[in-house]
Amino acid sequence: MSESSWVPGADGSGFGLQNLPYGAVARHGREPRLAVRVGDHALLLGVLEEAGLLARAGLPAGTLGGPLLNPLLALGRPAWSALRAQLRELLSDAANGRATVQTALVPLAELEPRLPFAVGDYVDFYSSIEHASNLGRMFRPDSDPLLPNWRRLPVGYHGRASSVVVSGTPVRRPHGQLPPAEAGGEPSFGPTRRLDIELELGFVTGPGNPLGTSIAAADAADHVFGFVLVNDWSARDVQRWEYQPLGPFLGKSFATSVSPWVVPLEALDPFRVPAPAQDPAPLPYLRTDGSWGLDIALEVELEGAVVSRTNSSGLYWTFPQQLAHATANGTNARPGDLYASGTISGPEPGTYGSLIELTWGGRDPLAVGNGSQRTFLEDGDTVVLRGWCGPREAPSVSFGEVRGTIAPA
Amino acid sequence: MSESSWVPGADGSGFGLQNLPYGAVARHGREPRLAVRVGDHALLLGVLEEAGLLARAGLPAGTLGGPLLNPLLALGRPAWSALRAQLRELLSDAANGRATVQTALVPLAELEPRLPFAVGDYVDFYSSIEHASNLGRMFRPDSDPLLPNWRRLPVGYHGRASSVVVSGTPVRRPHGQLPPAEAGGEPSFGPTRRLDIELELGFVTGPGNPLGTSIAAADAADHVFGFVLVNDWSARDVQRWEYQPLGPFLGKSFATSVSPWVVPLEALDPFRVPAPAQDPAPLPYLRTDGSWGLDIALEVELEGAVVSRTNSSGLYWTFPQQLAHATANGTNARPGDLYASGTISGPEPGTYGSLIELTWGGRDPLAVGNGSQRTFLEDGDTVVLRGWCGPREAPSVSFGEVRGTIAPA
Repeated sequence: MSESSWVPGADGSGFGLQNLPYGAVARHGREPRLAVRVGDHALLLGVLEEAGLLARAGLPAGTLGGPLLNPLLALGRPAWSALRAQLRELLSDAANGRATVQTALVPLAELEPRLPFAVGDYVDFYSSIEHASNLGRMFRPDSDPLLPNWRRLPVGYHGRASSVVVSGTPVRRPHGQLPPAEAGGEPSFGPTRRLDIELELGFVTGPGNPLGTSIAAADAADHVFGFVLVNDWSARDVQRWEYQPLGPFLGKSFATSVSPWVVPLEALDPFRVPAPAQDPAPLPYLRTDGSWGLDIALEVELEGAVVSRTNSSGLYWTFPQQLAHATANGTNARPGDLYASGTISGPEPGTYGSLIELTWGGRDPLAVGNGSQRTFLEDGDTVVLRGWCGPREAPSVSFGEVRGTIAPA
Repeated sequence: MSESSWVPGADGSGFGLQNLPYGAVARHGREPRLAVRVGDHALLLGVLEEAGLLARAGLPAGTLGGPLLNPLLALGRPAWSALRAQLRELLSDAANGRATVQTALVPLAELEPRLPFAVGDYVDFYSSIEHASNLGRMFRPDSDPLLPNWRRLPVGYHGRASSVVVSGTPVRRPHGQLPPAEAGGEPSFGPTRRLDIELELGFVTGPGNPLGTSIAAADAADHVFGFVLVNDWSARDVQRWEYQPLGPFLGKSFATSVSPWVVPLEALDPFRVPAPAQDPAPLPYLRTDGSWGLDIALEVELEGAVVSRTNSSGLYWTFPQQLAHATANGTNARPGDLYASGTISGPEPGTYGSLIELTWGGRDPLAVGNGSQRTFLEDGDTVVLRGWCGPREAPSVSFGEVRGTIAPA
């Protein structure tokens, strides 16, 4: 089949036939509707479904008629593949009957993105060895930067599902308890002074597993619908004071932003690469065959300046390992769970995925636009994370962006 | 109004007019229906609503017609109070028109309890100073048992919402990564050898707050619908190996059991008592007026033997403080969130709320039924947590029980 689309602007945009990511869009003040992004258009899936154009995908009636992807997520890979195949056919250069499809195409400029899935549980991992090592060096300068468990299992924790928001949602600077200036001193309460970002990649689950069973590493990919960019906003001062011994809580829970379009795993198949070698070899329940690294170029823009460029292919723990680990104790994944990678940092300073690393704890300010400098975020600052596969100018698959502007406390 | 009910067995059972807790029940294999427990009966709320007997409560149509309490939770205290007043009237000795109400009463023996609310986020605190001190003594014997933040804020973390289950659900012994026998050794993977319980009390939220706002401590009680008993099952070996630096994950996420009947906060009003004095005084955002301790007697039964008796009135951090803290950073609570207290331990060994404390890390086995001993849980063991207000023999308000039996790995 042709890889070209008749939709103007689709080819070479990163949102052509190779991608076809899923999202939800709304006209101002109206109910969200499910869509696939094609170039700079949203293709409304409910319109196609009602017109009978998706009949061969064989989805249960109404799967695409609501505001959320969760019913589609629950169906699993055969349904996803069938739907994707039919959408590719409808949008391909070789397609007949474009007129009806055309009625389902709406320019993105007329629409607002909405969060396209109801988040069941949100889990955040810590899977970049460079990031974990950098934080270890800063927080525990006198010991091994990696704790003994780090190379043995994908360290992770549960984050807050309620505050997962779609790109564009303003992020209010959080209040919190700030650590005492010296040991034994008084903490204070006020707006965070160390507001940070975390550049992450997250996967959204499809069919889950019954409570009391596990998802094997070899099967994990079949439970993964697709990927989004994640900005796991962090208040470093709040986090530092609260996190012992039960982990991050309010330092993270105020907002987690995701990109609006969920890129199907199938679209990423051509960009699977070998993940870094793991030493020591993981325990059998974490072993996989095949290449599960993802060659996705990533960048962080802060106030108009690109301050970091990195790639997700360097993540030490892969997404099948993450999902196998997360369910190894028999807990149940559900359609719409979000599992984020943890901050993605490369080996050099310009490839780090957080400001605390890029400025080394605030020591080395970054140059941003208009001759300004930043350590942590100031009110009004805008952060944009971007991701794509292939050449930047003409990506095969784009994740678009996840954008957020800091509102004052 | 009379405090006596015409329903046989209700008075003095802990499930009389003073209580009227909400739950969901199902005949075998059928859809769950919302109900209030009265004595040993479930009063089906949908039947009353359809018969027009709840009209004066003024609820939106269909609030009580589904399988979950969430629509009722979202309405807030005025609606809850109106519904409670009308139910008390219908069930009171002085009531007329009992015949229709009678048709809505079903013996509990014919029904199975179901989880009555969709859990949004699940947060677990660590609010018993005795429990936190005991764990500190065991895990960090050479330093202050309480970390510097403990008396400054209600330490907590996000748990897993998907595996919150109703009383009676079997709990499969989880697999997990078990710590190396000695530092630098190899971890292994297998069934936990240190399966534990945690006796907790949890509150279920009603109306939430918009993202970017907070719930003030003084207003927090109006956002709390009611309370359940919580058993936060824990795999201590898994937890010990995984929890640094991001907190508990798989050591906790395999199951959290709750009692089936949500006791309304209004029913607990007569049992509010002063909470322990807090030293140092909490920061202003954590200050409350009034008495927010809850005088609830609690016990842990293991294989037929009561191994602990305690009371929730000793919890250092109160539930309004917990909710104010959890939302202080602007994150949004939602109807149906579950916030658990953390293990409730008293000052003496027979009042501890976990086996790791009761056996002091497995050193001192407990005598249970049939001349057996236990350190941690064995396959087939049944644990029952109970809670009540007033005298044990004739409680004013009962929480019933949360029960679980360990299934083999």
